Amino acid sequence: MEPSHIVRSFDEELGQIESLLLEMGGLVETGIAESVEALTNADAELCEKVIREDKKVDALEMRIDQMAVQLLARRQPMADDLRTVVCALRISSNLERIGDYAKNIAKRGKVLGGQARVGSSVNTLKRMAKMVRAMVGDVLDAFVARDTAMADELRLRDEEVDHMHNTLFRELLTHMMEDPRNITPCMHLLFIAKNLERMGDHVTGIAEQISYLVNGVMPVDDRPKSDLVETIARNPIMPVK
Amino acid sequence: MEPSHIVRSFDEELGQIESLLLEMGGLVETGIAESVEALTNADAELCEKVIREDKKVDALEMRIDQMAVQLLARRQPMADDLRTVVCALRISSNLERIGDYAKNIAKRGKVLGGQARVGSSVNTLKRMAKMVRAMVGDVLDAFVARDTAMADELRLRDEEVDHMHNTLFRELLTHMMEDPRNITPCMHLLFIAKNLERMGDHVTGIAEQISYLVNGVMPVDDRPKSDLVETIARNPIMPVK
Repeated sequence: MEPSHIVRSFDEELGQIESLLLEMGGLVETGIAESVEALTNADAELCEKVIREDKKVDALEMRIDQMAVQLLARRQPMADDLRTVVCALRISSNLERIGDYAKNIAKRGKVLGGQARVGSSVNTLKRMAKMVRAMVGDVLDAFVARDTAMADELRLRDEEVDHMHNTLFRELLTHMMEDPRNITPCMHLLFIAKNLERMGDHVTGIAEQISYLVNGVMPVDDRPKSDLVETIARNPIMPVK
Repeated sequence: MEPSHIVRSFDEELGQIESLLLEMGGLVETGIAESVEALTNADAELCEKVIREDKKVDALEMRIDQMAVQLLARRQPMADDLRTVVCALRISSNLERIGDYAKNIAKRGKVLGGQARVGSSVNTLKRMAKMVRAMVGDVLDAFVARDTAMADELRLRDEEVDHMHNTLFRELLTHMMEDPRNITPCMHLLFIAKNLERMGDHVTGIAEQISYLVNGVMPVDDRPKSDLVETIARNPIMPVK
């Protein structure tokens, strides 16, 4: 067995960083699923757990960043290896942000309690969370495998998340207009939907980093980006003129 | 005059990156000010300008990142120099995000047109924008001067931004409850306020990077963080039980 004090190769150290990223991703995936589950079931304890667990995600980001900087200092990697380490740094900060959004959902879940159930909104939130959670897992697999095809596919999947967000946004606004008592819970649900939508954007950010890592250029954004504020402008129930 | 093809020193190259960061910061500051000005005056043309100019911010981020990676590859800096370059990478991505928020405010401004004036909200947004804009300028000065005292002060100033956001949030919710016709414009104003609040968080993120750069440790978060969702929970006009 190799004693731990032996100096490891660059690939070994990079491998350690990659497995920490996967560990971080696993925690974030759980956070996404549990935050929305806690919201759906008005489970205050589970909300607390999600909020608590996010500290581990933050700690992992710090650790990954320190390892990456040490790796840069000790190995002084060139070209692709260098880009990979910088990419790992970016991915860890994207994952940390996604974890933050899950924590925020849990906080709102605590406040909402039983009030989260307005119309069918909670079901849409569940679908969004399920989709985003899968995207987080897949984008990390794409990173480890340097799989640009999957990275490109993820950018397309984020469109679906955006569409669900737009639909939910209009639905919630309608509920708010129908009954002022819906306004406070719907406000929280709107911000929760926004959090899930932003998670998808961070996955897209990671996917673009992977394309950059493999191809050396950022992908051209050919996505027919569905722009929510434009959507609202066109939406009859939300006249802006 | 030194011909451009001569290989420059590490400090010279780092200086170039720092001035690009300052250029980026200048564009972002303008974006913050103009987005809220455009919103206040229902100036669709100025909205378009802000949206257009954000492309320059994105381009600068790409350029800074490429220079930073080249610098790491060519100079293979150690210790502090290495941390400085990594810090520059993080700052550029924070600035890019802040620019994005300004662009989003401009998009909402286009949609809102004359509808932005609900109660005194626009004045609060102006004050928030003024404060955040100043923070962006100061945090970059703090970075260039490695001034941790200013960095710590900025983390405190972000609290004021959070407080203004909380106050505005409650005010806008009240308007929504008073009259359903306020719901759509207030929704946009709520997200605009949120954008400004997030900008402050990104400045805080940069400030923490500076402390990390100079002291080698992240500052302990001793801020009495005012938590909006908790605030809402305590707010009589927004019962959650």
